Amino acid sequence: MDKQTITRDFIDIQDHICRELELGDENGSFHEDKWVRAEGGGGRTRIFKNGKIIEKGGVAFSAVEGPTPEKILKKLNLEKADFYATGVSIVIHPVSPMVPIIHMNIRYFEMSNGVNWFGGGIDLTPHYVEISDAKYFHQEVKKTCDAFNPDYYPRFKKWADDYFFIKHRNETRGIGGIFFDRLVSNDPSEMNNIFEFVKSIGYLFPKVYRHFMAKNSALPYSETEKKWQSLRRGRYVEFNLVWDAGTKFGLDTNGRTESILMSMPPVANWEYMHEPEEGSREAQTLEYLKKDIDWVSL
Amino acid sequence: MDKQTITRDFIDIQDHICRELELGDENGSFHEDKWVRAEGGGGRTRIFKNGKIIEKGGVAFSAVEGPTPEKILKKLNLEKADFYATGVSIVIHPVSPMVPIIHMNIRYFEMSNGVNWFGGGIDLTPHYVEISDAKYFHQEVKKTCDAFNPDYYPRFKKWADDYFFIKHRNETRGIGGIFFDRLVSNDPSEMNNIFEFVKSIGYLFPKVYRHFMAKNSALPYSETEKKWQSLRRGRYVEFNLVWDAGTKFGLDTNGRTESILMSMPPVANWEYMHEPEEGSREAQTLEYLKKDIDWVSL
Repeated sequence: MDKQTITRDFIDIQDHICRELELGDENGSFHEDKWVRAEGGGGRTRIFKNGKIIEKGGVAFSAVEGPTPEKILKKLNLEKADFYATGVSIVIHPVSPMVPIIHMNIRYFEMSNGVNWFGGGIDLTPHYVEISDAKYFHQEVKKTCDAFNPDYYPRFKKWADDYFFIKHRNETRGIGGIFFDRLVSNDPSEMNNIFEFVKSIGYLFPKVYRHFMAKNSALPYSETEKKWQSLRRGRYVEFNLVWDAGTKFGLDTNGRTESILMSMPPVANWEYMHEPEEGSREAQTLEYLKKDIDWVSL
Repeated sequence: MDKQTITRDFIDIQDHICRELELGDENGSFHEDKWVRAEGGGGRTRIFKNGKIIEKGGVAFSAVEGPTPEKILKKLNLEKADFYATGVSIVIHPVSPMVPIIHMNIRYFEMSNGVNWFGGGIDLTPHYVEISDAKYFHQEVKKTCDAFNPDYYPRFKKWADDYFFIKHRNETRGIGGIFFDRLVSNDPSEMNNIFEFVKSIGYLFPKVYRHFMAKNSALPYSETEKKWQSLRRGRYVEFNLVWDAGTKFGLDTNGRTESILMSMPPVANWEYMHEPEEGSREAQTLEYLKKDIDWVSL
């Protein structure tokens, strides 16, 4: 397992995901934007256009290298070193408010001093929380985790609850999923197990999302649901710009702004003191935007 | 000059501004939302509704008190102390893309240990930069500053350029204005001069904004300009959520979220890699979103 293998496998995952999403949408397609990073490396950002089900979506691959940013070195208390980082990152904003927003990321980071790790996660942000959908999603994620390590799902599920939390609203971004970082082992076979796990998350993504695309895009909705979707997208913006450590780090260290902000919804709304009617489906959804819900056995 | 006087004068300024904006709009009116802070104090947030010229606007007054947040004490390297803070804060998002977004804030802060200061600012974010408008705005601001101290305008204009800067876009939020913080003097007559200056900024706001409301809302525009307005509102969101120190501090210290995010536009758009056509008015506007432009004598 070396960085070339990881990079190649990540590229395959990007290709696979893009094919799957195009098949699922039946109308739109990805447009590729290749870019080069002045300090070393580059990427291929793919943006979905003319979607029937996907309104705005990006599937980004990048592999960048060069001197490690000062902020990372300082945080890790390390001397100057070069780094190599590669990853696949996805956010999909669907047309229909009945289809959830989804985010997936897998990444690998290594430095010339030998420090290296994997990170990643997958999490779901339904505009309307449906218990059966949430259960399906968490069961699929758990199954993928359990195939590699029985500790993964409980640890990484909690990590996601804590990470995808909009502190100033006291609500989670969505129903969570898993989040993990700095996953590493000195044992080469265990490190390979981690790599296989990370790839499985990449392959799980199109499977679960095509399920939601097919099933939920067939559901009816009206202006009420569209309006609520727009307000929820506002919350998505708030999380990503105020609390997401990855976004903040990227914007603060001269990352590629257009790739980082690919996660922004096409349109978002804000309304002062908006409160859904008691007992409404919108109010019910807010009840479920909490940490520590055991979705798998709910 | 004591905190009661300052508070009363700030309340008068909020009242004056609300009356002026209602007169200028001719259709909409402010709805007041009184709130109480659990730890001490409260405020009256006024939100503009049904505006003909103003699409979303808030004029907030607050006067809060209690134990000084740890983050402030640590930053100032001070022991435990109580604080009192009062201010008026405004953001207006107009219906027409030809009318600029405006922001104004005046504030006073004091602690039981004797530390105190004024802060504030006023800045303009036109969707389309018009030289004559920018010049008018900066001249009015300079005139107000010069009446109190010839150093104010150059110092605070630069401060605004540096403060209202969207680092990850390498562009200023708008055409700036003035920004100042921790303005204080041991000389009581000078401190009173500062207080009068701060109030003048409060009274300047409705004067300049009514000028733009009357003049610019009469200008024609089409879907092209509306679309651009929506993208520029996206940048406004980016600045406020990623870089605005006041917003970040408020959201991080359990401030009143709905008052802090009153600054959000009603709707905002994001488009991947949007670039205006060369030579277009949109492209020209981007050329002017730079620091250190001498608007007064341009």
